[in-house]
Amino acid sequence: MTDAVRMTLEQVHELTIAVLLAQGFSSNHSDAIANTVIAAERDECRNHGLFRIPFYVHALRAGQASGNAEPTMTDLAPGIIKVNAHYGFSPLALDRGHAALAARVKQQGIAALAVNNALNVAALWPEVERLGEEGLVAFAFVASSPYVAPAGGTKPLFGTNPMAFAWPRANRSPLVFDQASSVRARAEIQLRLRDGKTLPDGWALDPEGKPTNDPREALAGAQLPFGGAKGSSIALMVELLAGPLLGELLSGGELVIAIDPVRCVDSGNRAAQLEHGERLFARILEQEGTRLPSDRRYEARIRTLREGITIPKPLYDTLVSFRTGAYEVPNVIYQGDKILRAHQTRPAVVTIDTA
Amino acid sequence: MTDAVRMTLEQVHELTIAVLLAQGFSSNHSDAIANTVIAAERDECRNHGLFRIPFYVHALRAGQASGNAEPTMTDLAPGIIKVNAHYGFSPLALDRGHAALAARVKQQGIAALAVNNALNVAALWPEVERLGEEGLVAFAFVASSPYVAPAGGTKPLFGTNPMAFAWPRANRSPLVFDQASSVRARAEIQLRLRDGKTLPDGWALDPEGKPTNDPREALAGAQLPFGGAKGSSIALMVELLAGPLLGELLSGGELVIAIDPVRCVDSGNRAAQLEHGERLFARILEQEGTRLPSDRRYEARIRTLREGITIPKPLYDTLVSFRTGAYEVPNVIYQGDKILRAHQTRPAVVTIDTA
Repeated sequence: MTDAVRMTLEQVHELTIAVLLAQGFSSNHSDAIANTVIAAERDECRNHGLFRIPFYVHALRAGQASGNAEPTMTDLAPGIIKVNAHYGFSPLALDRGHAALAARVKQQGIAALAVNNALNVAALWPEVERLGEEGLVAFAFVASSPYVAPAGGTKPLFGTNPMAFAWPRANRSPLVFDQASSVRARAEIQLRLRDGKTLPDGWALDPEGKPTNDPREALAGAQLPFGGAKGSSIALMVELLAGPLLGELLSGGELVIAIDPVRCVDSGNRAAQLEHGERLFARILEQEGTRLPSDRRYEARIRTLREGITIPKPLYDTLVSFRTGAYEVPNVIYQGDKILRAHQTRPAVVTIDTA
Repeated sequence: MTDAVRMTLEQVHELTIAVLLAQGFSSNHSDAIANTVIAAERDECRNHGLFRIPFYVHALRAGQASGNAEPTMTDLAPGIIKVNAHYGFSPLALDRGHAALAARVKQQGIAALAVNNALNVAALWPEVERLGEEGLVAFAFVASSPYVAPAGGTKPLFGTNPMAFAWPRANRSPLVFDQASSVRARAEIQLRLRDGKTLPDGWALDPEGKPTNDPREALAGAQLPFGGAKGSSIALMVELLAGPLLGELLSGGELVIAIDPVRCVDSGNRAAQLEHGERLFARILEQEGTRLPSDRRYEARIRTLREGITIPKPLYDTLVSFRTGAYEVPNVIYQGDKILRAHQTRPAVVTIDTA
């Protein structure tokens, strides 16, 4: 493969940590961000992998994010734990909240983590998967910048608003999905623009509100919610949960809810609950053409642990230069770097599509 | 209007109660079921209104449901309240659980109601709307009989699996949605069969797994989830939450989750949270062609309180005959009455599509 660099996951880890430290992230933030980057490369979710590091660096350089803010945790209620990220990126806030949430859920049966003032540019599945690995059912909701028209409308209003869900499985990784409320992720439209391709019907509207197959017009116009009015309702729900519910006027909120299945039945017979789930999964998989939402990631995980990953040579070169502390404004091919929802009394939030 | 009978909502109430009592429902069950029937007629959700009474009666007569089981409540955890419906219909179980859940949520910040062994044939919105009226955010999930193919598959497996959501609003009814995970409700296909109409593309597969526009083939085959793989993920999530999570091997479970917004922020400034929601709703409505998910119901509510409702004369005549205790097997036009998921150790569950 020309123009590509093969790396082991250990090398991904070393390079990521070295870059983040050299660029001014604290050791805590570097570790937390690196874990999400490595998980994404390992599972071949490349859009959340090394590709995303320039955005972290850019946000820090542009003063849009803190590189060393220590998240603080508060009990808002027996079932609600708040984590204030103080304008740092979300991985460290989620790390800090995770153990507290898991412990609280086991005590209360159900509990929630309310993350505020975070920059959310990572995928949601690592957090719900981690809760699923502890035997918990988990949900996560994040609102992003306004890109998606509400059903019936033509102007961007909702974020691509991803939600994630995890269901625990015995002796194997949880069933997980993590999906945007738009038909497709914004990055897929940007990739088609870069590659000179058109869009399928039903993805987007142009700035006049007419259906378009032109990625440039789509990016200037509005993406559409998945599944029409029903997907629009999901987008609205996510917008409310990650914004107003958390007192977040800007897009810096994330809501994580977890439930302990063993506390949902009299007998406390978790094995029967999980077995019931397994029978459902088996019935899905016995139909030709189906798969479980997380299967592709888990298959990639086996492959990359054995074979490593490849990244484009230009990205590799950029990261190597970053490791010395050098910096240039990243070449934003896939994602917008518009500063949206800026606010007078707090740092502006860099907008990077999370889904 | 010929062949239709106009009734006030008071008359709907009187007739419903009289029929249910005459047919052997206890006073408690009659009141609870009547409230859901009246709410549905009031909001012009006719599929859950008087039309549904013959199914309640039929299930009772066929020994598939209890008409007098008193639900019992247990604390499974500080945040989880279980209601065992003992094979009665769900409205009484939800009534009994409602006040306990609302009180628990205000104490804990977040809590859930786990309803087991219930016959769920009512809409979900009345319960989440009621929680929303108390200033709470609420979710409800119910799994139904296998009608919907998983994404990529061709055989019915998921229920139409509705989920509902409510967001509280100051001095007005909550924002609410209640939507099946299938493209359309099963009843809409059955109505098209009755009326000799074809189906739009994308609703269903025939028994061989090929796309069909024939309602008869669709009913014998599989409905499709809304929004492709993403809607299929939602259907799977609902199936897990209303079944395995609650220890429900059959479709008799309902999960209700509620969150107190005021416990999700430091300041406890609920007005600001609600105001933020209102600004979002205003931005949706300023786009031409949009509306909020519950607007149609609330508009109908104003109209029917003033003008009453109309029902088909044959349905009216059936209900009047039921009021004397007379009974004949209802003419099942819209819904299947197949007994599915029957189980040796408990009464069979009559299958009536809830969404």
